[in-house]
Amino acid sequence: MTLPSHGSNPHYLYEALKIEMPEAVLDFSANINPLGPPLRIKEQWAGFFEGILQYPDPHAIELTKSIAKKEALPEQSVLVGNGGAEIIMLVANGLANQRVLIIQPAFAEYAEACLAAGCKVDFHQLDAPEWQLDLERLIPQLPEYDAIFLCTPNNPTGVSFNRDAVRELIMECQKADCLVVLDEAFYDFTEDAFSYASLINSFPHLLILRSMTKIFAIPGLRLGYLLAAPDIIKRVRNYKPHWSVNHVALEVGKMCLAEEAYMRKTRDYIALQKQKLFRFYEEQGLNVSASTVNFYLVKDESLSLFPFC
Amino acid sequence: MTLPSHGSNPHYLYEALKIEMPEAVLDFSANINPLGPPLRIKEQWAGFFEGILQYPDPHAIELTKSIAKKEALPEQSVLVGNGGAEIIMLVANGLANQRVLIIQPAFAEYAEACLAAGCKVDFHQLDAPEWQLDLERLIPQLPEYDAIFLCTPNNPTGVSFNRDAVRELIMECQKADCLVVLDEAFYDFTEDAFSYASLINSFPHLLILRSMTKIFAIPGLRLGYLLAAPDIIKRVRNYKPHWSVNHVALEVGKMCLAEEAYMRKTRDYIALQKQKLFRFYEEQGLNVSASTVNFYLVKDESLSLFPFC
Repeated sequence: MTLPSHGSNPHYLYEALKIEMPEAVLDFSANINPLGPPLRIKEQWAGFFEGILQYPDPHAIELTKSIAKKEALPEQSVLVGNGGAEIIMLVANGLANQRVLIIQPAFAEYAEACLAAGCKVDFHQLDAPEWQLDLERLIPQLPEYDAIFLCTPNNPTGVSFNRDAVRELIMECQKADCLVVLDEAFYDFTEDAFSYASLINSFPHLLILRSMTKIFAIPGLRLGYLLAAPDIIKRVRNYKPHWSVNHVALEVGKMCLAEEAYMRKTRDYIALQKQKLFRFYEEQGLNVSASTVNFYLVKDESLSLFPFC
Repeated sequence: MTLPSHGSNPHYLYEALKIEMPEAVLDFSANINPLGPPLRIKEQWAGFFEGILQYPDPHAIELTKSIAKKEALPEQSVLVGNGGAEIIMLVANGLANQRVLIIQPAFAEYAEACLAAGCKVDFHQLDAPEWQLDLERLIPQLPEYDAIFLCTPNNPTGVSFNRDAVRELIMECQKADCLVVLDEAFYDFTEDAFSYASLINSFPHLLILRSMTKIFAIPGLRLGYLLAAPDIIKRVRNYKPHWSVNHVALEVGKMCLAEEAYMRKTRDYIALQKQKLFRFYEEQGLNVSASTVNFYLVKDESLSLFPFC
């Protein structure tokens, strides 16, 4: 039996398990904003039709400018892509045949993309129940690698790594001439929306992956971006198909960036719901990871194994 | 001065030429169906909104099945992608570091994608005014290459290559152990919508690229596909980012495939308009390529050079 490598599209899981899919499903596997997209997107939806008759702007100039302004980075440090998954694939192409270390547990796509690009991929496993970085174990390994992948807040644990540890890791990677690919797909769900993006100007070996599909609940449209030094952006752009970001995603993306109140509302809602839910788990005697975001790992110690494995 | 490598997005051309862009522009550089998208797409547009809240089907199962049925090929011979440009990039990744021959003139993306994938790229130039294949000159070169790219109907001349010559080339490539990448992005604009797709079952070295954005006038959505032997599809799929085709494109694509009457109407309209337009060009003493589709090359012999070059 092969289980799907990603969440969402639950019918694939039911098919793999040979169970009939019920009509109503509560999908805990996709980490999308439970509030749904900003109201303005639905209101403006009819207006997006005419734009499908034209090629989208291949350079996504307007959205790139808005992102650069928001991040206080030069436009040349931004590359808009067809969802986080395309950005990961482009970065992997840039690392073709190199040695890559993936800090685990992590989003399955890093390994898949790097292997497809012919990289030598190794894994550094973090330990439950804290899931924090262990620099003493990690730093000596860095000189062996051309790049490391780190996801913070982490997918699937929801844990944000200790900030000083991440900063130290970034500095140690610079000494070891090792790129740092930092996936911040969920940074905007944390209570203070903390990001390492301001380090881009000082650290030319730092790449930050961002997703717009999770926080704005638009996974069906595909939208993400890369923040990095202009040299890296220029190199990675070579692997990007022309017009890879569709017109609707570009238009919706521009509107979403202005939705500050919606993002605050989302963070407040997640914090409140998580409090309730975690209290429930605690009462049930279940172990939950110390998530800072809208998803978590939960373990029932009374089950020795995941029942389907 | 660097001119844009692609048509469409005319503001980039005006910027490059440092000319102010007028409010109304007749864009001859994008080869899109002048009838616009099938009426049903606009009518159903509101219904596509809800789907953007979910991840799109990463395997595009329903659209894949519809395409396979239409082409009388197994589903395993179809790979749906984020526009023809993504399919070209995926195929180029599959050819990484190999030797590639591009039959020119051709869509600029083949060379860009192959160079990004580290291929050694050579060009075989066809001659005006016929722009037909010269097999005597071409066949002896084949053993030097791992793949050739051929676009028929050709972009930018609009010429359909002699069918016997294309079939002979496909057979000679098989003998020379050279893949044939045949771009049929515009096949459905020709009067009989002739395609080489039925050869896929007999020739495991034949790859056919298709676009759905041109004939259905939906370039803003991005949709294309690859037809090839299951082994090739499986290999090329490795390079494809997960969920690379957005939900709206998948839904619109399924509707479009059923639009037989719209496609016939398009072909009739193009044939009629081309007749009128070519008569005009002839009266003006201009040379026009023998286009079978919705675009052409036109040359004013009284101008020794393109005025901006």
